[in-house]
Amino acid sequence: MATKSHALPEITAYRSVPEFAYGRIKDIRIRWALEEIGQPYRTRLIGGIFEDKAPAYLADQPFGQVPVYRQGDLILFESGSILIHIGDTDARLLPSDAMGRGRAISWMIAALNSVEPMIQTLVALTVKGQGTDWLAGAMDAAKPFAEQRLARLSQALGNRDWLEEHFSIGDIVMIDVLRNASPQLLAPHPNLAAYVARGTARPAFQSAMAAHLADCAVAAPLPA
Amino acid sequence: MATKSHALPEITAYRSVPEFAYGRIKDIRIRWALEEIGQPYRTRLIGGIFEDKAPAYLADQPFGQVPVYRQGDLILFESGSILIHIGDTDARLLPSDAMGRGRAISWMIAALNSVEPMIQTLVALTVKGQGTDWLAGAMDAAKPFAEQRLARLSQALGNRDWLEEHFSIGDIVMIDVLRNASPQLLAPHPNLAAYVARGTARPAFQSAMAAHLADCAVAAPLPA
Repeated sequence: MATKSHALPEITAYRSVPEFAYGRIKDIRIRWALEEIGQPYRTRLIGGIFEDKAPAYLADQPFGQVPVYRQGDLILFESGSILIHIGDTDARLLPSDAMGRGRAISWMIAALNSVEPMIQTLVALTVKGQGTDWLAGAMDAAKPFAEQRLARLSQALGNRDWLEEHFSIGDIVMIDVLRNASPQLLAPHPNLAAYVARGTARPAFQSAMAAHLADCAVAAPLPA
Repeated sequence: MATKSHALPEITAYRSVPEFAYGRIKDIRIRWALEEIGQPYRTRLIGGIFEDKAPAYLADQPFGQVPVYRQGDLILFESGSILIHIGDTDARLLPSDAMGRGRAISWMIAALNSVEPMIQTLVALTVKGQGTDWLAGAMDAAKPFAEQRLARLSQALGNRDWLEEHFSIGDIVMIDVLRNASPQLLAPHPNLAAYVARGTARPAFQSAMAAHLADCAVAAPLPA
């Protein structure tokens, strides 16, 4: 693998996360993209997901999340922004013509803003509402938003392998978002389940996930 | 105002929306950006927010949302993707150096993926849960996510006018996202309230909002 830049990119990742988040932190998206183009990188591990972040970390990542991406003087946050930056260096991740580029970015942002939030709301309500009397009512209200988005996505994907003709950063984010959908949500859409299986079978995803899991432990549960 | 491209850009917008969405549809973000750089555009009105979308519309916008952006052969969806495309044509919206560009895009995606979803969940629960016995419990569980993100955003903004040194597409999206936060959510953060006031006082926002409202009626309530 050739180094494509003088400064080796560095990403941050968590040292430990609670069980529900294990294997699901967003540095996977960046690792996956870098593996796809054979770009080596360095990892800087930071404290657990619920630990207070140092002021210096918040200066780089205002919301205290991972990953932060650093390459020389350039410091970026938000996986979507980092993926556009990496994609701009390699057409295997982001086509360089205006149309192909625009469509891939449209899909990536659709994953971040029109699909992930509806799935993430269900995850958050489930985690926070376990054993409460409001969970069932809130889930019944929130689920149709996610179901509608997945139905539309399934229709748009049809029987294609990827969202557009070629694999792109749009697929990286959409597939990682769909990994967090419950099996029940995906069940009506075999083409979406196959799409996730196809993406996560890529050697670059497999290497990225192995590195992600090697860096991260399951945290002890919080005191009740 | 000089036309900056041979093909006049066209965006879609709704002919009518329910009262809670009036003045809050995402075509505002694109109108605002185009007004900032004096780029004329055309509007194509489509049916109401809950109407079934024609198959031809879903081919352009897989989730049936607005806006779709069309310029010559280029068809883009998702306001964030459209704003990157427009920003790439004018440094007043998106700096052209790697650092400035990367930071502005990071902030825009933070608005779309790390702030808007937490605020939107509260809006959706409130609309769907009115009068139910689960609303209070679900809101108590969901509110801390939004509160934490606004606290971090307030800290990052500090006493600056904009998220970075210059106004950018990051501010356009963040300010529009914050317009949907309830007054109670913003109350602990006077600098965020002032930031929204500063952004919405810009002549370009005012023109964009006037055009948006001129195109859109309040829909009759759905039958109970």
